[in-house]
Amino acid sequence: MTITSRQNPKIRHLRRLCSDSAYRRETGLFIADGEKCLQEAVSRGIELAEIVTLEELPEYSGYELTVVTAELLEYISPLKTARDVLFVGKIPAPLAQIAPATRYVILDGIQDSGNVGTIIRTGVAFGLNRFILTPGCADIFSPRTIRASMGTVFSAEYIYTDCAAIAAAKARGLRIAGTALYSEAKQPRDSELLRGGYSAAFGAEGRGLTVEMTELCDEFVKIPIYGAESLNVAVAAGIILYEMFSEKPGGK
Amino acid sequence: MTITSRQNPKIRHLRRLCSDSAYRRETGLFIADGEKCLQEAVSRGIELAEIVTLEELPEYSGYELTVVTAELLEYISPLKTARDVLFVGKIPAPLAQIAPATRYVILDGIQDSGNVGTIIRTGVAFGLNRFILTPGCADIFSPRTIRASMGTVFSAEYIYTDCAAIAAAKARGLRIAGTALYSEAKQPRDSELLRGGYSAAFGAEGRGLTVEMTELCDEFVKIPIYGAESLNVAVAAGIILYEMFSEKPGGK
Repeated sequence: MTITSRQNPKIRHLRRLCSDSAYRRETGLFIADGEKCLQEAVSRGIELAEIVTLEELPEYSGYELTVVTAELLEYISPLKTARDVLFVGKIPAPLAQIAPATRYVILDGIQDSGNVGTIIRTGVAFGLNRFILTPGCADIFSPRTIRASMGTVFSAEYIYTDCAAIAAAKARGLRIAGTALYSEAKQPRDSELLRGGYSAAFGAEGRGLTVEMTELCDEFVKIPIYGAESLNVAVAAGIILYEMFSEKPGGK
Repeated sequence: MTITSRQNPKIRHLRRLCSDSAYRRETGLFIADGEKCLQEAVSRGIELAEIVTLEELPEYSGYELTVVTAELLEYISPLKTARDVLFVGKIPAPLAQIAPATRYVILDGIQDSGNVGTIIRTGVAFGLNRFILTPGCADIFSPRTIRASMGTVFSAEYIYTDCAAIAAAKARGLRIAGTALYSEAKQPRDSELLRGGYSAAFGAEGRGLTVEMTELCDEFVKIPIYGAESLNVAVAAGIILYEMFSEKPGGK
């Protein structure tokens, strides 16, 4: 049966999953859109709660299906260009703790969900798929982050934590290179991080790394630019992650 | 006097500048938002037609000022998070033709204005500030492109053209490296383009370079990834432009 009313409790539930990160945490569910992200979720073993579509399609016959009108599908979606399918799934469990001998991509209070999603996509592409997110970061299971990540968020391992926990991991061997604007910082290519083992930390655009995170960095790298004030943080992260990856077997 | 009505012809004019690229071409005007972009436009010698704000501020006393209500400012802006200031300026003239001995960043039908703006920002940051845009590309003077470029579009040189004109420039010496997904392509670091002189071409996400542009490429480079299907095109461009830049004096 097709749902047609905005007042339907199910529609209210789906809308809240889209817009309310506290509700997502409470229910343990995310909502995302698009065939591509759905396939990615399925292939990564994400437990799906339901699929929301415009008609009963045979390819979704194995799933709990909710059929709604096109107007309602657009009403539910928080994104400007709604896709033909939405899906709800269980948010995968975060990492229990930071493993000091592992490389992480550290997102230090990066608020923009598009940038967070794009950085996750790049990290996963380069095989650096473990992410530490400090307070202030966008929710990595928001619909917009999931879309920007092209579903790669489903193959990411992640932990939301703070600088105290990162400091504790440092005492056990974690090493961090921070991206900086200081002129005395090394170029990425000359950095110790390239020889392996280092994690990389990226701060919010404009502000850069927080004071707390800056104090936890073992060294700083700086991408040399001169024609503009700064790079987009997802572009800067792309360049650093490429450099980190390029020294690995398979890279050059 | 503060404009309060949506029916005011000026408001209709500003709305059209925001949403209608044909109207921008016809009038030769762009509209953009934010203090930062405004400062960038002024410092780059862009001819301003008017500034739209909420109140008469002394710092804008030298300009044609339009004062509107907050509700109207939001109504005009096509972007979700409206800033406190909008400004209208004259679109700078494009390059008359492609100079074969120059390096260009070639955007091959990249539709997303956020990606186009981010690539311009990155190119300008690395001193590669000449852009060729083929049919299908987003308007580089749309409000969203200007914002994504952080105003660096005002220091860019650009030409909208097609593959026939690019082929003519090739006959006079232009050399192009294309980003490809082919496995036989070189890694960016091993490419001739790094030794200078080459332009770099980037295709749309998903589709990649068009057939026409592919035929114009002298060689292909490929960023080695393995954990995801692809990179965001602005991230991929960032990595290639960084490699192109890094071989120049001042880089490493």
